[in-house]
Amino acid sequence: MNLRLVGPTPLPPTVRDALARPMLNHRGPEFAAMQTRIVNSLQHYFQTAHDILLFTCSGTGGLEAALVNLLSPGDAVVAVSIGVFGDRFADIAEAFGAQTHRLRFPWGSAADPDALRAKLAEIKNARAVLITHNETSTATTNPLQELARVAHENSDALLLVDAISSMGAIHLPVDEWGVDVAVTGSQKVWMIPPGLAMVSVSPRAWDAYAHARMPRYYWDFKKMRDAIAKGQTSFTPGVNLYFALDAALDLMNAEGFENIRARHARLAQHTRDGAQTRGFELFADPQFASNTVTALRVPPGVNGKKWRQVLNQTFDTVIAGGQKELTDKIVRIGHLGWVNEAELDACLDAMTAALPYAQAN
Amino acid sequence: MNLRLVGPTPLPPTVRDALARPMLNHRGPEFAAMQTRIVNSLQHYFQTAHDILLFTCSGTGGLEAALVNLLSPGDAVVAVSIGVFGDRFADIAEAFGAQTHRLRFPWGSAADPDALRAKLAEIKNARAVLITHNETSTATTNPLQELARVAHENSDALLLVDAISSMGAIHLPVDEWGVDVAVTGSQKVWMIPPGLAMVSVSPRAWDAYAHARMPRYYWDFKKMRDAIAKGQTSFTPGVNLYFALDAALDLMNAEGFENIRARHARLAQHTRDGAQTRGFELFADPQFASNTVTALRVPPGVNGKKWRQVLNQTFDTVIAGGQKELTDKIVRIGHLGWVNEAELDACLDAMTAALPYAQAN
Repeated sequence: MNLRLVGPTPLPPTVRDALARPMLNHRGPEFAAMQTRIVNSLQHYFQTAHDILLFTCSGTGGLEAALVNLLSPGDAVVAVSIGVFGDRFADIAEAFGAQTHRLRFPWGSAADPDALRAKLAEIKNARAVLITHNETSTATTNPLQELARVAHENSDALLLVDAISSMGAIHLPVDEWGVDVAVTGSQKVWMIPPGLAMVSVSPRAWDAYAHARMPRYYWDFKKMRDAIAKGQTSFTPGVNLYFALDAALDLMNAEGFENIRARHARLAQHTRDGAQTRGFELFADPQFASNTVTALRVPPGVNGKKWRQVLNQTFDTVIAGGQKELTDKIVRIGHLGWVNEAELDACLDAMTAALPYAQAN
Repeated sequence: MNLRLVGPTPLPPTVRDALARPMLNHRGPEFAAMQTRIVNSLQHYFQTAHDILLFTCSGTGGLEAALVNLLSPGDAVVAVSIGVFGDRFADIAEAFGAQTHRLRFPWGSAADPDALRAKLAEIKNARAVLITHNETSTATTNPLQELARVAHENSDALLLVDAISSMGAIHLPVDEWGVDVAVTGSQKVWMIPPGLAMVSVSPRAWDAYAHARMPRYYWDFKKMRDAIAKGQTSFTPGVNLYFALDAALDLMNAEGFENIRARHARLAQHTRDGAQTRGFELFADPQFASNTVTALRVPPGVNGKKWRQVLNQTFDTVIAGGQKELTDKIVRIGHLGWVNEAELDACLDAMTAALPYAQAN
C-alpha cells in the first residue's frame, strides 16, 4: 500500500523488527539505557539542552499535558489558530478553564505576527500563547520564529507549540526561539507507530509548573522527570514503541539532521511541482506551504470522497481528505518520515489516473 | 529471559508478528473492522452488553478517565484501598478535586465489606466507590462481589473498579455485579505490550457523564464512543497495539474464557504450592490470594534487592520487588497472560538457587 497520510507513516524494516522484539523489564537497566539514548537523540532534534519527557499517548495527549502542567483555571491564554489543530489546542485550554482568546486566520493562510502583536496589546495578562507550528489540516507552516519573537517582545507569556507534524523535519530550534513546551508525536517524522508524545520543557516552564493549578495526574511533568532521572517512567510505558523509536533514531542519526531537513524540503517541492505539472491546484498560501504535507484542491467536477475511495480500492493508495469545513474540498498528501520521490510520483500518478472514476454526479 | 513481572508479560509469537505488521490507514475500513472485532471480544471477557472504549495510554490513564468522565469537583468519593494501586486511584480522585474519603486496610489483607457498609453509613452522599479488584502490589484479590453488593445496597454511588490486573483471568461479570466502569490494561492478561487501556461504561455511568464537570478532553468518553460508532477513535490510536490485541484475542477465543480462568487459578495454586514446598512464606491472606500474582516474603537474612539482581544477572529471571513500604520486604511473581507451569517452576528454582548469593551483610 502507498500510505500517504500525514502520519501514521509507513514503517522502515528495522522499525518493524524492533516492534516485534521480546518484552523486557520496563524497570530494569536495559530500558533505562534505551530511554537515555532516546532522550539524548531527541534533545538533538528539538535543539534543546533541557528536559525531554515521553508520554504514552497520542499527540493530543501531549498538548493536554503542556497546558495542564503550566496553567491554572482562569489564566488568560492567546490561542493562535490557522486550522483544525489550532482550534483543538484552544479547545483543550478552554476545557480546563483557561480564559481562551482565539486569534484565528483563514484556513490556508499562516498567522500574521502583527495581528498577534495587536492581540497581546489587548490581552495584557496572557499567561500563554499557543501556536501550531505546522498545521496538518491545511498544510500550512506558521512563521514561528517571527511569532515567537512577537510573543516574547510583547508579553511574559509562555510559548506552547504544537510541533506534532513538524519537529525533526522543519527547522525549530526550541531553545533559541524560546519555546517553553514543544510537543511532537511518534507517528509523524519519527517513522514509528502512534502512541508516544514527546515533549520539551524549558526552565521557564518549570517555574510555571510550580504554581500551575490545573488538575493533573497521568500527565504530571514532575512525576515523569523524576522517574526518567531514575531510568524509568511515571507509569508503565509503551515499551515496544520505545524499541521502535530507538531503531528509528538510529536511522535518523545515520542520515543526519541537516540531510533529513533537506530531504523533507526537497520532497515537498517535488510534490508541489508534480501536482501542479499534473494540473492540480495547491491549497495553502505558497509562501507558507508545509514541508511535511501538501494540500490540493479537489478539482471541479470531482467527488472528493469517491476519488479517495477509488484511489484506495483500485490503486492501493491512501491519501488524507480535508477536515471540518474542508471535507471533500481538499485532499492532503503526507511526505514526512519514511518516504521517497518514487512513492510520491506513484501517488500523484494514481491520483491522476483515478480522476475519471471519481466524477461528481 | 524468564520475565515474571505482573505485566508487561512475555508476548506470544503471533502477537509479536502482529506488532510488526505494516502500518494502515487508521481512518479506513480495515481498522474499523478490527476495532469491531476487538470490542466484541472484550465485551465477552468483561461480561458486559454495554460500551467498551479503548484509550491509547497506560492503565493509570484508564483510571483517570473513569474519574474525570463521571465526577465533578467536590463530589464525595469513598476510595477502598488495600495497597499501592488503591492509594493511586484515591490520589487521582483527590488531584481532580473529589472529596476523597479513604477506607484503607492493612497491606496483604482484603477489604472488609462490613467496613465499607459502615463507611457508606457515615459518608451518606458518596457519588462513587472506588475499588481495586486485584491489588497488584500485595497480590491480594478483593471480594468484589460482596463489596459491590454492599455498595449498591447502601448507596447510589457509582462503582468504579480497577480491574487492570484481573480482567480476563479472574471472574468479574461487569453487568451482573453492577460495575459502572471497569478498567484494564493491555500488558496484563491480554498478553500484548503496554499502551492501551480498555474501559467498560454502564448506562448508569453515561447518566453520570451527562452531569460530570471534571475537566477532560483526551479522556472524553463521549468523543470516544462517537468515534468508535464510526469505526474510528477520538484521537490517533496506537495502531500496532490494536494489531497485537486482535491477535491475542484470537488466541484467547481459541482457548476459551472458562479455560483461561481455570488456567490462571491452576497456575496460581501451582506457584503458591511450589513456593511453600521450597520454604518460602506467602505474603497475602491465603483466603484472598490472587490468581494473577503471588507475593512472597523476602526470607530472613536475605537482601531482597541483591536477590533480584542475582536472579536477573545470573539466572536470566526477572521478578518484581515490593513497592513503597514493602520495598525489599516482599517479591512478586506474575503468573498472568502467556505463562505455563514449567516457566514458574524454573522461576522458583532460580529463586532458590540464587539465595546463597543474596545474603544480607
